Amino acid sequence: MLNQAGSLNRVFQALADTTRREIVARLIRGPASVSELARPLAMSLPAVMQHLQVLEACGLVRSEKAGRVRTCHIEPGVLRMAEDWITAQRTAWEHRLDRLGDYLTEHCDSPDQGSTQ
Amino acid sequence: MLNQAGSLNRVFQALADTTRREIVARLIRGPASVSELARPLAMSLPAVMQHLQVLEACGLVRSEKAGRVRTCHIEPGVLRMAEDWITAQRTAWEHRLDRLGDYLTEHCDSPDQGSTQ
Repeated sequence: MLNQAGSLNRVFQALADTTRREIVARLIRGPASVSELARPLAMSLPAVMQHLQVLEACGLVRSEKAGRVRTCHIEPGVLRMAEDWITAQRTAWEHRLDRLGDYLTEHCDSPDQGSTQ
Repeated sequence: MLNQAGSLNRVFQALADTTRREIVARLIRGPASVSELARPLAMSLPAVMQHLQVLEACGLVRSEKAGRVRTCHIEPGVLRMAEDWITAQRTAWEHRLDRLGDYLTEHCDSPDQGSTQ
């Protein structure tokens, strides 16, 4: 439980940056080398590599080196963990609205019937 | 676009903390006063209020004061924005897998037919 909380902290922290979200969105389309990832970003290669380190540390991205090229891949399961947490909150919210709707239907007169009190 | 990126940064940053996620999960079940929110948390009231400030700054929570009681409410639309971003990535990932599946079906012989090469 504590481990999952720590993992969620790291994933949400990693997603709290526009550049890192752009890297994630790029890798969702397919693997890419570090220089391919850096090309559309207005920053130095070392800065891109720092962002990649954050993404690798939380497990969102893994990479492997072949010769002089490091290729990065997305790990969709980690993204799914963050999605699951948010979706669970949204579902709980919708259930609350449903219960509120049921309560109002049971306890309030419809305008057509008029109030009896 | 820039504004939405900034909003997403702040929402993901707010969610990157176990206590703040607990507060969000509590408020999803219904409004609560600051002291009700603080009760199950092992921290001082000022520390809870600091977390609430982060949640209010990104729009996830709003609060109003009546007399001496400040009541907090969730803003589900802001949570939805974060969910939408993650879901868009997951959907793009699934489309990529579908395309890969189509490619393999088109270009690879099935084991039943045997290889012609």
